[in-house]
Amino acid sequence: MWRLRAALCAGLLLMIRSCLAQEGAWWPNRGDPQRLWTGEDLSAMKPGDSPYGALWPRPRSVQISDDFLYLSPARFSIVHGSSSTAGPSCNLLQDAFNRYYKYIFGDSKWQESENRPLGELQLLQVVIISPDSDCNAYPSISSDESSLETFSQLVYQDDIGLFLINKTLISDAPRFGHRGVLLDSSRHFLPKKILFRNLDAMAFNKMNVFHWHIVDDQSFPYESAAFPALSKKGAYRQYTHVYTQDDVREVIEFARLRGIRVVPEFDSPGHTQSWGEGQPSLLTPCYTGEQLSGSYGPINPIKNETYTFITKFFQEVANVFPDHYIHLGGDEVDFSCWRSNPDITKFMADHGFGTDYSKLESYYMQLLLEIITSVKKGYMVWQEVFDNHDKLTPDTVVEVWKEKNYQNEMAAVTAAGFQTILSAPWYLNRISYGQDWIQIYKVEPSNFNGTEAQKKLVIGGEACLWGEFVDATNIMPRLWPRASAVAERLWSNQQVTSIEDAYNRLVKHRCNMVKRGIPAEPLYVGFCDHEGHL
Amino acid sequence: MWRLRAALCAGLLLMIRSCLAQEGAWWPNRGDPQRLWTGEDLSAMKPGDSPYGALWPRPRSVQISDDFLYLSPARFSIVHGSSSTAGPSCNLLQDAFNRYYKYIFGDSKWQESENRPLGELQLLQVVIISPDSDCNAYPSISSDESSLETFSQLVYQDDIGLFLINKTLISDAPRFGHRGVLLDSSRHFLPKKILFRNLDAMAFNKMNVFHWHIVDDQSFPYESAAFPALSKKGAYRQYTHVYTQDDVREVIEFARLRGIRVVPEFDSPGHTQSWGEGQPSLLTPCYTGEQLSGSYGPINPIKNETYTFITKFFQEVANVFPDHYIHLGGDEVDFSCWRSNPDITKFMADHGFGTDYSKLESYYMQLLLEIITSVKKGYMVWQEVFDNHDKLTPDTVVEVWKEKNYQNEMAAVTAAGFQTILSAPWYLNRISYGQDWIQIYKVEPSNFNGTEAQKKLVIGGEACLWGEFVDATNIMPRLWPRASAVAERLWSNQQVTSIEDAYNRLVKHRCNMVKRGIPAEPLYVGFCDHEGHL
Repeated sequence: MWRLRAALCAGLLLMIRSCLAQEGAWWPNRGDPQRLWTGEDLSAMKPGDSPYGALWPRPRSVQISDDFLYLSPARFSIVHGSSSTAGPSCNLLQDAFNRYYKYIFGDSKWQESENRPLGELQLLQVVIISPDSDCNAYPSISSDESSLETFSQLVYQDDIGLFLINKTLISDAPRFGHRGVLLDSSRHFLPKKILFRNLDAMAFNKMNVFHWHIVDDQSFPYESAAFPALSKKGAYRQYTHVYTQDDVREVIEFARLRGIRVVPEFDSPGHTQSWGEGQPSLLTPCYTGEQLSGSYGPINPIKNETYTFITKFFQEVANVFPDHYIHLGGDEVDFSCWRSNPDITKFMADHGFGTDYSKLESYYMQLLLEIITSVKKGYMVWQEVFDNHDKLTPDTVVEVWKEKNYQNEMAAVTAAGFQTILSAPWYLNRISYGQDWIQIYKVEPSNFNGTEAQKKLVIGGEACLWGEFVDATNIMPRLWPRASAVAERLWSNQQVTSIEDAYNRLVKHRCNMVKRGIPAEPLYVGFCDHEGHL
Repeated sequence: MWRLRAALCAGLLLMIRSCLAQEGAWWPNRGDPQRLWTGEDLSAMKPGDSPYGALWPRPRSVQISDDFLYLSPARFSIVHGSSSTAGPSCNLLQDAFNRYYKYIFGDSKWQESENRPLGELQLLQVVIISPDSDCNAYPSISSDESSLETFSQLVYQDDIGLFLINKTLISDAPRFGHRGVLLDSSRHFLPKKILFRNLDAMAFNKMNVFHWHIVDDQSFPYESAAFPALSKKGAYRQYTHVYTQDDVREVIEFARLRGIRVVPEFDSPGHTQSWGEGQPSLLTPCYTGEQLSGSYGPINPIKNETYTFITKFFQEVANVFPDHYIHLGGDEVDFSCWRSNPDITKFMADHGFGTDYSKLESYYMQLLLEIITSVKKGYMVWQEVFDNHDKLTPDTVVEVWKEKNYQNEMAAVTAAGFQTILSAPWYLNRISYGQDWIQIYKVEPSNFNGTEAQKKLVIGGEACLWGEFVDATNIMPRLWPRASAVAERLWSNQQVTSIEDAYNRLVKHRCNMVKRGIPAEPLYVGFCDHEGHL
């Protein structure tokens, strides 16, 4: 029995330019009769095989040879390399080692290869080479990344149950630093279990930002410590349909262990109907003629109490969510209620806003942005905040979401020197019949008129799943593997555009997700060895 | 404590014009303060409330009064009425009693009402009045129906956990006798568990025919006793992706206990690529010029061996599936391979078919139909078999599936005196963004030019979920509650067309399904008290 050593070089968290190197192995040759029983000859399989196996997203550089080693579940270990700056005290890595051992070997029956003249891979050494490999830190936009995920995707099982891995050289790093998924827990409440499962799926696809659109008009499930009435009255149900402070902490930690940032969105001044349930004086009272109509509009921007509330509320949010960024929304403000309100009319006149209500919107946003800066946070905003010429700090991230002419908006935002992320073509709540992942996959975020410097300001994108038509019953198969198409677009080289090769890998990657408990829907006809059971 | 007796009058299986009558109750009056804490005042709920509660499909005639009784999980029983022709030896009813007790009371915490001046419903008597109530029989197209389902849909829980039922008078019977769901286990294999879950959902929606499109081009998961090679070579995987004879029996029995018929479809002569894997001489070899191309076309209709195989195979099918009907397919036969084959060309000439290959198709179908008649079965066919003027037995059911001008086809089929079922507008595999259940709901099967006698030949319809894009991961939320719209259309009066009332009931019915373990997707924004967990 040969003993092998593999070194997986990695950066902060789970790595940078991972590389798998073997020494002293016995390699069966191509065409060796042994290959027949290993099940490696997969030519009969539909769909076809990719030269990149089941790797998803495709790494920057991959060389998979025909030579392979086998892995014994009884003997294989994942360990810290001797030159690593991390060690057993790093719970993040220990957790990852355990998790990936299970992903690789699963519950399936396996076979040892005692009598086979095969090389065996017994050790995966993880070497963290970053000087600041703090295992307790939260990931950030500048974190170097890669993961054990790549290694696990290289392992496969042959027909008789042997675990095999081909000798492979990989050099990898993501193209974009912001690879997000937006979930909306307001139109439908999403149980914590579903959030966890989605974070797992994100990790399997190397996505690294959970954009948590946590509240909106329809419900306010965030249980605030400072303002408990917000969820008590604004959630669909005050006990079962809320995220307590502990729940939020658990979600953030679950994400951190997988190298995923949690960026919460508390959208205002529009999309705030549910805020008004527990904080009635916050919203603008609407009028019908000279009478109060009984309904409410956006946050009331002309009252001092509004800013007292907003300051205290976002101080809490800034403490609860460790990420540097808070998403402040700022989209789709409906001016009709403001127009109806005589106090607002007077305020507009006093401030010389004329009848341009976008100036009133800017007035509110500007104060909000200053509050956020005062609590030492950066912010993300929807494109309207940029369009309204609000004064933004240089590290602001502008999210482009309007589908029409989104390339023009990308050009304008980057020409003004702001970082941007793209979600316009990736509203995955929209569905159509057939293989719509192909259109999702074909999007090229840098495809707009601009200089190289402008293109560098595109820091990534997000797959958005708005919640009108999804809840725990259908959210996972609706999102996955369609969001995988976004994941590869944001990770892999710009030149990775073959639909056929993507299909061949994504079919396998989808089955790997299903095997790991993610009910990712099928791309087209076919099967997985392990069908998903709900 | 008042003791009440309720009688649920029922026909064969579980019913016919069920009626719930109470005697000697104390009824709180409308406006009684007691009503406040019962949670009956649901006016704050969005969506609105229907006068028909959560009943789905809407029964023929319903009178729900404001008076209500409470049910104690500890004391409530479902029993055979003394005048019933069925008794404890009827396992079908015993199983249903147990099942529905659990559906009604679930696992939720409940509350007794010892100190409340409320009437209590302690007994549900089920009275079967059919003279031939054979509990071991299989359901048929002429079975009278209704169910405990209606009773269970009337029970609700108030805010403090009391189970309540309003005094209600119901008279019910379905409008159409054939209310089907087609699942396709060939494009993707559907684990038995999923079939069971779908049968449960069908029962919750009073659908009564499982049209099992069990094999097709892509795979042959039916494990034939006479021809085991068909699945051994034609299934996606020979052990894990097949239905054994035991599996099939289990599915049929699971369906029978819920009043659901299982109509298997073995589609031929087209859609049979997978048959050829295990029965290679069955299919027509295709030619490129004068050379065999290596690919195969539809079943070869010119060989005697074909009919020897078909006879033996359908003899088995006729034995395994107890329903009177077998669906023989007959759709979408591609003539290009037949055209390329010189033996077929000669046969066509010998029989004077000219170049009309639909005559060759009819030649095959005619022999097949005779074989089915010889094994004492009736058949269902796709519309092409009718369109080709094949000679059909009078009890044939023609299924209209082509969307274009389907009303004309309904008129033609019924004008020729054949029974028909409609599936053309109900291909639920097709999806679009938004509330597409409304279009599904608006279909009126009798909406074609024809006499009253013709309309009577419309015996129902089917929601078809073809399997290209669905497997175990997404099939249930894709199908439900969209198929519920078909269910009500086929059960309720033609006059039941209010979208608003349907929405108000379907939202509740969807949540009831979720509570019972069916991951039925949401119609729109909102919530269920018990969110679905996958």
